[in-house]
Amino acid sequence: MSLDSFDLAAVKENPYEFPKARVQEHLEGMFDARREQVAKLGIEVTEATSYLERFVLDGGKRVRPHCAWLGYVAGGGLEGNVAPEQVDSVLRAISALELIQACALIHDDIIDSSDTRRGAPTVHRLAEADHRERAWLGSSEHFGTSVAILVGDLSLCWADDLLINSLMHSGLDFDALRRALPAWQGMRTEVIGGQLLDISLEASGSDDPQRSATVNRFKTAAYTIERPLHIGAAIAGASKETIDALRGFGRDIGMAFQLRDDLLGVYGDPAITGKPAGDDLREGKRTVLVATAIERAANEQEAKRIREAVGNVHTAEDIAALAELIASTGAPEVIEQQIGALTEQGLAHLQVDGLAPQARAALAGLADRVTKRKA
Amino acid sequence: MSLDSFDLAAVKENPYEFPKARVQEHLEGMFDARREQVAKLGIEVTEATSYLERFVLDGGKRVRPHCAWLGYVAGGGLEGNVAPEQVDSVLRAISALELIQACALIHDDIIDSSDTRRGAPTVHRLAEADHRERAWLGSSEHFGTSVAILVGDLSLCWADDLLINSLMHSGLDFDALRRALPAWQGMRTEVIGGQLLDISLEASGSDDPQRSATVNRFKTAAYTIERPLHIGAAIAGASKETIDALRGFGRDIGMAFQLRDDLLGVYGDPAITGKPAGDDLREGKRTVLVATAIERAANEQEAKRIREAVGNVHTAEDIAALAELIASTGAPEVIEQQIGALTEQGLAHLQVDGLAPQARAALAGLADRVTKRKA
Repeated sequence: MSLDSFDLAAVKENPYEFPKARVQEHLEGMFDARREQVAKLGIEVTEATSYLERFVLDGGKRVRPHCAWLGYVAGGGLEGNVAPEQVDSVLRAISALELIQACALIHDDIIDSSDTRRGAPTVHRLAEADHRERAWLGSSEHFGTSVAILVGDLSLCWADDLLINSLMHSGLDFDALRRALPAWQGMRTEVIGGQLLDISLEASGSDDPQRSATVNRFKTAAYTIERPLHIGAAIAGASKETIDALRGFGRDIGMAFQLRDDLLGVYGDPAITGKPAGDDLREGKRTVLVATAIERAANEQEAKRIREAVGNVHTAEDIAALAELIASTGAPEVIEQQIGALTEQGLAHLQVDGLAPQARAALAGLADRVTKRKA
Repeated sequence: MSLDSFDLAAVKENPYEFPKARVQEHLEGMFDARREQVAKLGIEVTEATSYLERFVLDGGKRVRPHCAWLGYVAGGGLEGNVAPEQVDSVLRAISALELIQACALIHDDIIDSSDTRRGAPTVHRLAEADHRERAWLGSSEHFGTSVAILVGDLSLCWADDLLINSLMHSGLDFDALRRALPAWQGMRTEVIGGQLLDISLEASGSDDPQRSATVNRFKTAAYTIERPLHIGAAIAGASKETIDALRGFGRDIGMAFQLRDDLLGVYGDPAITGKPAGDDLREGKRTVLVATAIERAANEQEAKRIREAVGNVHTAEDIAALAELIASTGAPEVIEQQIGALTEQGLAHLQVDGLAPQARAALAGLADRVTKRKA
């Protein structure tokens, strides 16, 4: 449970370099600390939580803790007489974002009936396979879903516990918790609400690009970039001006991030993305790309063809034909322009007095990575 | 959002009378306060959260807030110079238990494939019906499940928010939050872990009464009585001796409560319980009652008959025959004896110096109600 002491001097040398390995250690420590309580419940519960442990520890890019760290440093968290344990507590607190993400992905994978995630079977498929292998009673598939619902619930609870306990027993000013909570709480409602909207638009067959943009705004932009930056900056006690700048930046870059995702979901190289080509078209996602293509279609017939094909293409040929049809409307170029405009607009938010040039450079680097990525 | 002022003098006149109506007002206030944020996400999200709102506000016996209130008063929360706003904040905080319960029931209903709850369709069935009525795309059943997963997640998050915000902005000693958190966090892991164990034992066809008792210990006793008492007493700043007494009482009475539930699930009067006769036998629940019957069966053949019939009876005749077979082993009498012994043992915990006679009487009344109930 107790980690090696935290080398603050090394961190201060390159403050914008995210101490990713330490986040990993804190996540490992969280699972270690839970082991005894879980074992008291029974071996089956240990097994179920080990799905979560492997899911969290073996994968994930740690994008959200990374953003929270940038928010913390840009917000002045490392300035003044800060103690190593305090900074370490902040890293421990923001590790909790990975547990929210675990719940979101585990539950989304049930909702999307996905078989794989992070290069391994999804949690509901793992539990299903174990059930089948043991020749247990009842439906293996339903059992897998049930376990994954509960494992996601545990992850959501433990996320809260980790954030709050880290900020309460950290030697940090108690106000750090008070400041961080609205951002944390807002984020959780936004990501779950955004997902509710997403599945509703998919079910209703919405083709309104504004509504798809609302999903992107809350399910991706707020959840992935804006709120993590906000949480970090709030913990640091940043000024309102700095927080507003970081949030504005995060919102725009987060939207651009999702638009890039939309393009990759249709035109990405499977060898780089690790997902089958045109996966979004098969799943029937109501992306801004698709909605824009429908809006820009040459005539009502073409619009109808796109509308009806999305979610109804199965063979590689059909998917390729639909991707080409969408491309023929010029929608991909429109989305590229939007990504460019949002990135520019996002970076413009950073031109406030309170931000150090080093912070601006680090955030510009982040913007570059998430909006120009190939996977 | 703002409620009428809180009449502390009236509460102090009958301190052990649970101010149930105020809990209802706080829950209503919670939903009112969320309305604006939810509306920004979209009408579909408002609709989905309205399932939760109706579920929480239209039903439920408020057993857990009631226990937390008893813990708070027995722990000395109303003594000294306590301000009305402080006590009101405690009531607001413990209302959060109803949101944990909403998540637990909404997710359990998916897991148990239940159609009704609290006399109304379950949340997944409501969302399924709305999907069907609107002729939306995809499987109505899967959509209903997806919405109910996310609505439960929201409820779990909002439970945390309500507890923590109430204790932080309450004019209460900040230590109240610090003291309450371990009980609150322990409870959440126990109830989810207990449910994981429950579905695993059901799937593996366990007939070990000790393991069924572990489910009762965590999924029911800790979650329903012990931890709510603990949370209330911790907020009040009760002594360790008082907290231990209340927890010991809650554990035993909670176990007795579940054993009564087991008996009612097989032998309860449908006209009073509101559930079909022998519902537990149809669902295949691995209760202590069933495990005890298997253990006490006259011979291996009889044990096998019970083991194989549980979860495999469908007609009223088959269910009645199985209930009779279980009765013939003498298991119901054994369970009655256990209920009696646990109740006695639970009440014995209350013989500590720190507890007022009035507290003992109120808790004895609670024990009586939950262990002798007919529904």
